[in-house]
Amino acid sequence: MRLVVQKYGGTSVGTPKRIQNVARRLLKTQSEGCQVVAVISAMAGATDNLLKLAHQISSHPTERELDMLLSTGEHAAAALTAMAVNALGGRAASLTGAQAGILTDRNYTKARIANISPKQIHELLSDDYIVIVAGFQGQTPEGETTTLGRGGSDLTAIALAGALNADACQIFTDVDGIFTCDPRIVKGAKKLGEVAYDELLEMAGGGAKVMQSRAVEFAKKFSIEFEVRSSFNKSRGTIAREERASMENVVIRGISVDRHQAKLTIAAVPDKPGIAGRIFFNVAAAHIVVDMIVQNASAGGVTDISFTIHEDELENARRILMPVVGEIGAKRLNTSSGLAKLSVVGIGMRSHSGVAARMFECLGRAGINIQLVSTSEIKIAVVIDEKDAERAARLIHAEFGLARLVSATAAAQSLK
Amino acid sequence: MRLVVQKYGGTSVGTPKRIQNVARRLLKTQSEGCQVVAVISAMAGATDNLLKLAHQISSHPTERELDMLLSTGEHAAAALTAMAVNALGGRAASLTGAQAGILTDRNYTKARIANISPKQIHELLSDDYIVIVAGFQGQTPEGETTTLGRGGSDLTAIALAGALNADACQIFTDVDGIFTCDPRIVKGAKKLGEVAYDELLEMAGGGAKVMQSRAVEFAKKFSIEFEVRSSFNKSRGTIAREERASMENVVIRGISVDRHQAKLTIAAVPDKPGIAGRIFFNVAAAHIVVDMIVQNASAGGVTDISFTIHEDELENARRILMPVVGEIGAKRLNTSSGLAKLSVVGIGMRSHSGVAARMFECLGRAGINIQLVSTSEIKIAVVIDEKDAERAARLIHAEFGLARLVSATAAAQSLK
Repeated sequence: MRLVVQKYGGTSVGTPKRIQNVARRLLKTQSEGCQVVAVISAMAGATDNLLKLAHQISSHPTERELDMLLSTGEHAAAALTAMAVNALGGRAASLTGAQAGILTDRNYTKARIANISPKQIHELLSDDYIVIVAGFQGQTPEGETTTLGRGGSDLTAIALAGALNADACQIFTDVDGIFTCDPRIVKGAKKLGEVAYDELLEMAGGGAKVMQSRAVEFAKKFSIEFEVRSSFNKSRGTIAREERASMENVVIRGISVDRHQAKLTIAAVPDKPGIAGRIFFNVAAAHIVVDMIVQNASAGGVTDISFTIHEDELENARRILMPVVGEIGAKRLNTSSGLAKLSVVGIGMRSHSGVAARMFECLGRAGINIQLVSTSEIKIAVVIDEKDAERAARLIHAEFGLARLVSATAAAQSLK
Repeated sequence: MRLVVQKYGGTSVGTPKRIQNVARRLLKTQSEGCQVVAVISAMAGATDNLLKLAHQISSHPTERELDMLLSTGEHAAAALTAMAVNALGGRAASLTGAQAGILTDRNYTKARIANISPKQIHELLSDDYIVIVAGFQGQTPEGETTTLGRGGSDLTAIALAGALNADACQIFTDVDGIFTCDPRIVKGAKKLGEVAYDELLEMAGGGAKVMQSRAVEFAKKFSIEFEVRSSFNKSRGTIAREERASMENVVIRGISVDRHQAKLTIAAVPDKPGIAGRIFFNVAAAHIVVDMIVQNASAGGVTDISFTIHEDELENARRILMPVVGEIGAKRLNTSSGLAKLSVVGIGMRSHSGVAARMFECLGRAGINIQLVSTSEIKIAVVIDEKDAERAARLIHAEFGLARLVSATAAAQSLK
């Protein structure tokens, strides 16, 4: 019998009515001859409410206790979903992460899954239960409750699909799949039929936050295929899988846009070992997330170091770095905000040359100035003025013909 | 070192501010040289909110899933309380019922505690932690989550006090202790210094719902002393303990009033075996809780059977019983509502005769008609018109001198 793992996000279980819809979907999947394991997130808003309570009590809540607290959101939603299945005449049982056998390390708030012993899941499945697992959580070997970080239910689903050797893993969300670009930005954006893990990882880091990155990394490590699709309709979504030779025929899989970026440049930094470490140690200690880091070749024993952060953190970062600039003997700190990062991603870049040139030329023709460039093997990211971001995305989408990208197969699938 | 178990009810942890107050109390107790284990209920309203969600999803939620769902209320409150202690510079860790080692049978929604293995509690205590246990919940030997019934946190606290061989068990609530009568009814009502388990049990069944009855039964079975006191002030409360000879010097410990009662009388029931069973089987099957049952000696082969229920259930009960009356060959069903039950309780009754006579006489003098009487060894309960209930309570309170009852010791204690 086919075994399917389905994950439903917070929006999909946001109201009692939506939970009932999820229950119907689970029963339908079962009636099609599948064993069904569902991973459920907390109802939309529930986690934020719990966090608000925590912060009313403590400005720095203990991480162990935060995990105890936040795990109740998924725990409750899983129980409600099981009730909904039972109310429709089905047979379901909910399990906490611990009961589902999800063992993690001791890193509260961002634990890593160490092992899964799905004994109880197997028993329930063989008794014809639909098994509803609370996402986002696990326990240490000592029995302490842990959580897997924001979006951790994706990881729960993918790891369970791996441990159960599932035939399919479906991530139900509030979008129809992975698109060539955000359809709110590019009207002609197309849903992808498939995407390679690495592409999805680069896209997730570039604004298209459909999936938790750690979940995708886990899927990649253990070659677990999964599908991202909508819980609000019946269209097929996007399959994430290991890359295949045929995938390289496409130069660029997608474009993503990150807004509200700020850039900091420390000018004339002495080119000595340890200097960069000193700069970023101070920034990290203040819990400021650094995105791109660019350092040019040095000239005359000094170099410029630039990096980007969310613009909300700019004042904070400036305050921290001003004294550091003096200490390390650099000349000055320049900052600017109102920027956006535009990333183009595709494993096809490996075998197609000239992608960067074509992209830069396209932007240049449109008079859009590039302020920073950073690349990986399968990504080119540029920082530009935020006001130019949407226009740039549309131009590049057209330049690389992304609207024609989706294969005939995928188009046919989406009609089913 | 003294080990103290403290239980805080839903009102005591109803807001972040109140949770912080509880945390202060826990730290104060620890600073007085005690090891502290706290049992926490769900924040006031949380359980009702969860129940409302459940009933929006299912008219008859699965009991297993209800337990999964409701346990999250206490679980979250325990985590928040631990955070509050930590935020004040203390050292606390929260545990679910399962983590605290509370093993129960498989009776979902009203499980009985089978065993407690407080290994983790002992370890945390010896590391100087204040241990915060989520009340109301446990797990089966198979690891399924169970709850202990409404008010089950009392049971958690008392059972833990027993298992840990605690030096004190304090039940913090929103009342100052157990009173000779509800002070809203009798102005001169006095807080009791002590009460015997059996008295408290009879009082709990008679409107004074301070404690879960099963918790008191558990305390009685294992001779676990506990104190009922207020979380909003520092007054000593009422100690519940095994009865002692000196307790019998007091004829009546307290009076309780149950309002909104209805009486049903099935007249001229054939006096044959099995008839009563048939009547009450039907009532029980409809989940109607029957309180008093009175059957008089039969005359001419027939007898009258009366019983009381909450008046909200009267229509339902009437509908169920009308056909039964015909089937069993009884004459008719009389019903009346707008009644109250007045109970006087005291182990002193065993050694003092004439208590009932004095009570009936007192009510008779005041022109208050008694409609039903039921007695146990330590209780006399009468059903009267609800409009007479408060007056009756005041008259009996005065008749038995309950305002003078509280011992000098207890009075002195309450000044501390």
